[in-house]
Amino acid sequence: MEHARRYAILGTGALGGFYGARLQRAGADVHFLIHTDFEHVHQHGLVVDSKDGDFALTEVQAYRDVHEMPRCDVVAVALKATQNYLLPSLLPPVLADGGVVLLMQNGLGAEEDVARIVSGHTVVAGLCFVCSNKVGPGHIRHLDYGAVCFAQYRADGAPAGVTNAMHDVARDFVAANLQVELVEDLVLARWQKLVWNVPMSGLSVVLNADTRALMADAHTRALVEDIMDEVVAGARASSGRHLDSSFVQKMLGMTLAMAPYRASMKIDFDEHRPMEVEAIYGNPVRAARNAGAAMPLVETLYRQLKFLDTRNLGLGRTPSR
Amino acid sequence: MEHARRYAILGTGALGGFYGARLQRAGADVHFLIHTDFEHVHQHGLVVDSKDGDFALTEVQAYRDVHEMPRCDVVAVALKATQNYLLPSLLPPVLADGGVVLLMQNGLGAEEDVARIVSGHTVVAGLCFVCSNKVGPGHIRHLDYGAVCFAQYRADGAPAGVTNAMHDVARDFVAANLQVELVEDLVLARWQKLVWNVPMSGLSVVLNADTRALMADAHTRALVEDIMDEVVAGARASSGRHLDSSFVQKMLGMTLAMAPYRASMKIDFDEHRPMEVEAIYGNPVRAARNAGAAMPLVETLYRQLKFLDTRNLGLGRTPSR
Repeated sequence: MEHARRYAILGTGALGGFYGARLQRAGADVHFLIHTDFEHVHQHGLVVDSKDGDFALTEVQAYRDVHEMPRCDVVAVALKATQNYLLPSLLPPVLADGGVVLLMQNGLGAEEDVARIVSGHTVVAGLCFVCSNKVGPGHIRHLDYGAVCFAQYRADGAPAGVTNAMHDVARDFVAANLQVELVEDLVLARWQKLVWNVPMSGLSVVLNADTRALMADAHTRALVEDIMDEVVAGARASSGRHLDSSFVQKMLGMTLAMAPYRASMKIDFDEHRPMEVEAIYGNPVRAARNAGAAMPLVETLYRQLKFLDTRNLGLGRTPSR
Repeated sequence: MEHARRYAILGTGALGGFYGARLQRAGADVHFLIHTDFEHVHQHGLVVDSKDGDFALTEVQAYRDVHEMPRCDVVAVALKATQNYLLPSLLPPVLADGGVVLLMQNGLGAEEDVARIVSGHTVVAGLCFVCSNKVGPGHIRHLDYGAVCFAQYRADGAPAGVTNAMHDVARDFVAANLQVELVEDLVLARWQKLVWNVPMSGLSVVLNADTRALMADAHTRALVEDIMDEVVAGARASSGRHLDSSFVQKMLGMTLAMAPYRASMKIDFDEHRPMEVEAIYGNPVRAARNAGAAMPLVETLYRQLKFLDTRNLGLGRTPSR
């Protein structure tokens, strides 16, 4: 039997709490870096209410400082992209020799930054298709879906294929009863996810609406489709990846079939947390522009979100002592 | 001395109440059509708090039915454009033979409809550059500006020049101490006004912000400028009117110099009244599209506003009895 991989979960929120708890329940050796909820989780563990079955982990290996953690074979980054400025101090102390960084975030461009920080190590993206929220300290509610799509980063932007590192991590996720997909082309996968994320996250914030309301109104539904088409064109211009129009239709159909959903960006906004505006909007707009392609609708959303984000954090900030 | 022109004011709100009261105070014979505030104005008259000096008119010729009004030489339409479906029943009974319709509204396209309703009569647009609000029944607050720009409609879209009808009406406004401008080209004047109105009205609603906040943030300020440029391009494509880029810079400079202002569309939205989305957004977008020119930013605002308008009226509507 092969050596069991040791996992670090950086960020024990809606995503890291859910996937980390599932891995631990399946027998993996999981170490959680926790900021706000450290005391609570250290004492009481994690609770996951899930459509796949509720469970609780009363004993959790919790840390509030990365220097107290053991070095891990897989370091899953489940922070918001707005916290990636922390990665240069978080990653090196916890990543084992030959270890893998698993980047479980939305948006574009973070793999490149991570690869620079841990140069020589493998960087795998884990694109999460899951509806889950943190509803209290150490308390995750898993509403729907749960699949993870794995793809490996290559510095030259070419497809990395399906690698051993991806197989290894995927095996642990499958053991945790999670649906996985192994894809050859990270860049394609990133843009595919943006096709949904860009219209739905931004419009849900700007118009204070859930996915169902946006799809039910003829004007916003047409806007969603035009934005999706623009993301497809941006992908083609900036990376040469071809998403055909049937992909947009598939995303629209999936959204129509979904239960009304509050996008995670909307939750961040409602709770006065920073939104992942640069990762999901700024980086794609710049990537397309560098290739000579304008994304006027996406850039409009970007600017609207930047305005709202700035004001929202100003209003939400509590005075420092 | 020439025969004094008799005025009808259709809609005695922020605009009609202000200009009608100023005309009456200067000696004009003014007849007000009033809906909601009829009883109050009939008994107590009109009160205008103004930066030019407060005044009250205790005696006002008020009507709630257009059939009780005398026929008037100038019928000023100061309704919201969303109420223009009423004009086929309102205009014919009150317009004197050889009378002039003075259309004091924002947006594009209403003159054509009015000209059809009162065919054979002169239609003059009165573009109002004024900050005024209705703050209570028969109570207008005039905050700033007040100029009216007159331009005559021609069915073929060509400049009508400065006409006698424009001179006549302008004389009465000047007598009321109002600043006037007589312009030869209605279409140009309409698009010029849209250059400011389109970004400012829509973004103030979508982002819940006043003009100063939109100009203070670098992202929304850039968005405002791009939308202004798009309106300039739409004017050129749809009507051949050339607004040079210095006009956009002038509008930006004026807005920066203004006191923070809540656009009238924002007031309508906040008070759960219909917004003039079709007049200010739908008609310009369609005019440009018919000329083969896309206005993607303006159309995005249009769709966002349509969504918000529908939801806002649904929430704001009181059950009918």
